[in-house]
Amino acid sequence: MTDPREQEVLDRIEQRRRRPPRKLLDQHVTLSHGAGGKSSHALTEALFLPELGNELLAPLGDSAVLGDRRLALTTDSFVVRPLFFPGGDIGELAVNGTVNDLAMVGARPLALSAAFIVEEGFPTADLQRIAASMGAAARAADVPVATGDTKVVERGKGDGVYVCTTGVGAIEHDLELGPSAIRPGDQVIVSGTLGDHGMAIMIARGNLELEVDLDSDTAPLHGLVAALLAATDDVRCLRDPTRGGLATVLNELARAADAAIVIDEAAVPVRPEVTGACEILGIDPLYVANEGKLVAIVAPEASEDALAALHAHPLGAGAAIVGEVRDDPPGMVLLETTFGGRRVVDMLAGDPLPRIC
Amino acid sequence: MTDPREQEVLDRIEQRRRRPPRKLLDQHVTLSHGAGGKSSHALTEALFLPELGNELLAPLGDSAVLGDRRLALTTDSFVVRPLFFPGGDIGELAVNGTVNDLAMVGARPLALSAAFIVEEGFPTADLQRIAASMGAAARAADVPVATGDTKVVERGKGDGVYVCTTGVGAIEHDLELGPSAIRPGDQVIVSGTLGDHGMAIMIARGNLELEVDLDSDTAPLHGLVAALLAATDDVRCLRDPTRGGLATVLNELARAADAAIVIDEAAVPVRPEVTGACEILGIDPLYVANEGKLVAIVAPEASEDALAALHAHPLGAGAAIVGEVRDDPPGMVLLETTFGGRRVVDMLAGDPLPRIC
Repeated sequence: MTDPREQEVLDRIEQRRRRPPRKLLDQHVTLSHGAGGKSSHALTEALFLPELGNELLAPLGDSAVLGDRRLALTTDSFVVRPLFFPGGDIGELAVNGTVNDLAMVGARPLALSAAFIVEEGFPTADLQRIAASMGAAARAADVPVATGDTKVVERGKGDGVYVCTTGVGAIEHDLELGPSAIRPGDQVIVSGTLGDHGMAIMIARGNLELEVDLDSDTAPLHGLVAALLAATDDVRCLRDPTRGGLATVLNELARAADAAIVIDEAAVPVRPEVTGACEILGIDPLYVANEGKLVAIVAPEASEDALAALHAHPLGAGAAIVGEVRDDPPGMVLLETTFGGRRVVDMLAGDPLPRIC
Repeated sequence: MTDPREQEVLDRIEQRRRRPPRKLLDQHVTLSHGAGGKSSHALTEALFLPELGNELLAPLGDSAVLGDRRLALTTDSFVVRPLFFPGGDIGELAVNGTVNDLAMVGARPLALSAAFIVEEGFPTADLQRIAASMGAAARAADVPVATGDTKVVERGKGDGVYVCTTGVGAIEHDLELGPSAIRPGDQVIVSGTLGDHGMAIMIARGNLELEVDLDSDTAPLHGLVAALLAATDDVRCLRDPTRGGLATVLNELARAADAAIVIDEAAVPVRPEVTGACEILGIDPLYVANEGKLVAIVAPEASEDALAALHAHPLGAGAAIVGEVRDDPPGMVLLETTFGGRRVVDMLAGDPLPRIC
């Protein structure tokens, strides 16, 4: 931490962090505003929060917690391209993504809603295939799709089909899961390899001209979360690192907790195929979306139990401790590299992987 | 009912009604599939229900009723064009539409979610205006927007902004509201003039070259419903006649209740401006969308109390009894015309008013 160049970066980030929420400078919405990183946060903080803000929305977690903390509510639109990809499709992704956002507050999914915006001319056979895969995913997660809606827009006003799923869940534990529970010394665990979903989509688009077998990791995580919460009461916070990847999620947590998070690069599990594809694209796997992985921040004394519980579940077989929460520098994420160096890991800027979910 | 031409129509409709759910014949999705009428029902019944079907979804009401009937869940996408129109905009429409779907099962709105699909290049000032109007509508309806999501799609893959709102509500009464409660003799009440929203949108598009001041009727109806349910326990069923209008809603109810509904044309309240615009477009106001009106089916002995309760509320000042439930012909809606004739009012076919909500 003595390199003057690094200190300068730290100072600049610290200054930005202490600044009051800025005005949105952009005159027009860009793809970056949908990428889940810095621009998305600016849009949320400078535009949506002032207009819609209330104490339920303000925590900006994966799910809102309602009604004396007994209900969770979460929504996501899915605009992934292509609609069908190795390991899943938009329908399965929508169901699992919504189940996972509920799971991150430890909620048992009660019901989902599904709204479709279909482009005129879209093949009904493809719509049926998507509905079938949503049905299968919903049955697998043991949650009904209880209500729905279909709108159709003219050709050239959509892109096949967009799906918006919303989930309501029951919170049946008394844990206070969230960044405010995070303490220095806590361990950062990921439940498996990172970047599989994002790279599977990029490869499926065919732009990389890569012949690699890589499936999206889309999966419902509520069973894994239940196993984890059964093993220990000392889970502080759960997140699913989707858009913006692990780096963005950890930045959100570090800021919200006003703590530092240090990642050990050598401990981060990444498939060689993902590393290879990331190198070609010039993207760091830490920023690539996952759709079947979670990040758990757990108390140090609970980390072995937590890891064992994850390892005992098929969806957590590749779980690993990848980092630690520290006091300083507050609000920042640092990476200890394999070569013994240390660098700042900032939130995602721009949108290297548009429409990944 | 003795005209042989009419009898033929009745027989044909009856045959169709008794048929098992058909296979979806369309190879491609058309605008009609989003219009809320026949094609929408075919899509839901032949495609979505077989794949997603479960006992919560099957009633296909405005809201699903969950968790031992204590929670209501509803979702809608809004793709209205133009985004800003006399009397409201897409944001206010989305909030009110979702509040209203909850109100139709007598639920008090607990929280909403809002998901935005924004087209790259959309002015952030317009997005802010929409968020502000959602915030104002949510405060007016006393319901927080508790969670949200923003996705951005490339230019030419959207149309400014689409909004998907989902609502969760608490059911705090013991009434069994729904078509199964409908009985012959029940009165059909509408809470005010029909067709205002749909015609306001068509006029706002400028295609009609009409210089008419007509505002959308977008409004949150949960207060009106609370007043109605406080006045009488004998409300059988509530619906908001949005896409497809009163005609489509009554057809749904007649089929679900296996009863006839007879409308008295002279009693249906329609503004002269709406009648005029409908004549130019060759559209029957019975098929035009409303966004601040409800249809209540009430027991005959309760109809005067119900009407008085509606009249006492600002949003029900124009309420009127417009029809009656009969035994025969089951599953059908008939109109007694001003000229003493009688004709079948079928469900909406095609989509004369695309992207009305």
